[in-house]
Amino acid sequence: MTVTPHSGSQPSGSRRPAASPAETAEAIRRGDRRALARAITLIESTRADHRAMAEELLAELLPHTGNSIRIGISGVPGVGKSTFIEAFGLHVIGQGHKVAVLAVDPSSQRTGGSILGDKTRMEELTRNTSAFIRPSPSGGTLGGVARRTREAMLACEAAGYDVVIVETVGVGQSETAVSDMVDLFMLLLLPGGGDELQGIKKGIVELADLIVVNKADGALVNAARHAVAEYRHALALLRSPSKDWKVPVLTCSAATRIGVPEVWETIGKYRSTLSATGALDVRRAEQARAWMWSEIAETLTDAFRHHPAVRADLATAEYAVTHAETTPTVAARALLEKFLGRSR
Amino acid sequence: MTVTPHSGSQPSGSRRPAASPAETAEAIRRGDRRALARAITLIESTRADHRAMAEELLAELLPHTGNSIRIGISGVPGVGKSTFIEAFGLHVIGQGHKVAVLAVDPSSQRTGGSILGDKTRMEELTRNTSAFIRPSPSGGTLGGVARRTREAMLACEAAGYDVVIVETVGVGQSETAVSDMVDLFMLLLLPGGGDELQGIKKGIVELADLIVVNKADGALVNAARHAVAEYRHALALLRSPSKDWKVPVLTCSAATRIGVPEVWETIGKYRSTLSATGALDVRRAEQARAWMWSEIAETLTDAFRHHPAVRADLATAEYAVTHAETTPTVAARALLEKFLGRSR
Repeated sequence: MTVTPHSGSQPSGSRRPAASPAETAEAIRRGDRRALARAITLIESTRADHRAMAEELLAELLPHTGNSIRIGISGVPGVGKSTFIEAFGLHVIGQGHKVAVLAVDPSSQRTGGSILGDKTRMEELTRNTSAFIRPSPSGGTLGGVARRTREAMLACEAAGYDVVIVETVGVGQSETAVSDMVDLFMLLLLPGGGDELQGIKKGIVELADLIVVNKADGALVNAARHAVAEYRHALALLRSPSKDWKVPVLTCSAATRIGVPEVWETIGKYRSTLSATGALDVRRAEQARAWMWSEIAETLTDAFRHHPAVRADLATAEYAVTHAETTPTVAARALLEKFLGRSR
Repeated sequence: MTVTPHSGSQPSGSRRPAASPAETAEAIRRGDRRALARAITLIESTRADHRAMAEELLAELLPHTGNSIRIGISGVPGVGKSTFIEAFGLHVIGQGHKVAVLAVDPSSQRTGGSILGDKTRMEELTRNTSAFIRPSPSGGTLGGVARRTREAMLACEAAGYDVVIVETVGVGQSETAVSDMVDLFMLLLLPGGGDELQGIKKGIVELADLIVVNKADGALVNAARHAVAEYRHALALLRSPSKDWKVPVLTCSAATRIGVPEVWETIGKYRSTLSATGALDVRRAEQARAWMWSEIAETLTDAFRHHPAVRADLATAEYAVTHAETTPTVAARALLEKFLGRSR
């Protein structure tokens, strides 16, 4: 961990004169990890003055972003995500890269802990000077958490991390949010047929650009091989293959590190294939446009919900609509007239 | 066809005094098919006065809606949707039901024809007095088409049609819209392995509550059986089974009508199973709530897009965002300030 709770909670610390956004950006680009950690804390803050500073800082950093491969990793608890990320991260660092690990976990508010908050996880990677690990900010809506992670990703890129991993748990809506911010979305699965997919929500498998069956070691080697064959078959049957990329199903054992280099090689192939066709640039441009529109929609809906007249009638409207006492169209129009202040 | 282009284009026709919403509602409930056809034309109109009349009419009809089983049917062109709907509709009518067929086809604007517009389709069903067939309204956004179809569905229910089929083509986003308005979403597939899924968009299979392999006749009987086994296996592997319902994969031959009664029986089982657990009521209530919120979001986004200051800057903002010249957050905030008229 490179950020202590103390420095982390004081993005505009009172002990020293606040650095200007340009100075902070310069420090981040120089590789100052404390500056990067403080910047992310600033990005995560909901205070209006911090928000304004974060935006100024991001504007400074923006020309130096975009040079990483952005990898989303998901899988249900127990699949060995931390062990995999540690093994994978160390391998990638061994190839001369710098690795940042971020997390999206909107559930951390409820569980009281973030998925990267446990400091005993990824011990070796945490100590490595080419790695930067940042726990999930706790609290907030998925939209809020996702925005902060996207912006933190940009800060990491400006700091020279050329492999950015965004981790999420395989049980909620956060998978869609993560797949919408990365170049490649990887799903980690356990060996043993379809049973372990029970915990994975509908549609998550279809988001995957790469499937890796982990724990393919010891007594599970054969089960893993069998699982790979089954998933390949099922994917071929149920997914429209992209003309640019056929989703591979690989095995690995994060514990013994067997198969981990092959995962990195496959990601390299993915990157070169999709860069060559321009598909990767298109994906990033589409993600940025969708991000802008989701911010707009979220802010508009928020403003709508908090409008006094709407607030007063919303519960009644939802009751009437769900009990078929009025049509959704009529209920929506009545609320909208209060908000927009005119008949539409 | 029960509506002629002429009467259809004159919902508030000048040849006779316009009926009041209460009178029209009464005529619809009596089973007057011309009144129903005119009501749907009114619902499809975008004129503000028609819209107001449609809403009054729907308010009159609403207490008499909800008594049908709402079935969505999708499948790529060539799967035999019309033949299936004709065979299925006639069978269901033979069981003493009244069947309405609506269509959602946002692509009809581009292709210049609606998917139910071809009058040579479903000839026998069209002539049956217990059937009401309505082509897709052409033009408009998916949201607009979907809203009109939802409201037309309510009018059909008030007219005593207790089986409402909503047809859509299996190639666009309309499947999600249709699955969001029906009790059961059925996907029609061709025999022959995974090849025919090429044309089906990612995620559509996961929307299905029932899969039917059509054209299981003649030389294709064995291919169809094989396809069923494969789909069952793949679904078991890739889908989290619902505790209330395991998605069946059936075969049928719409041309010879073999297997069609079994499809109707399975729908009956689905309905009784999900009614018993209350899941069907929950689904409808959730659909109504989601419909209200999507109308709200769509209207807000529309108002936003058409705001003069937003309009002036939108193209520049999208360019800057997709070319990584500004962050989506900053671009969104700048546009939102213009629309909401204050700093947020």
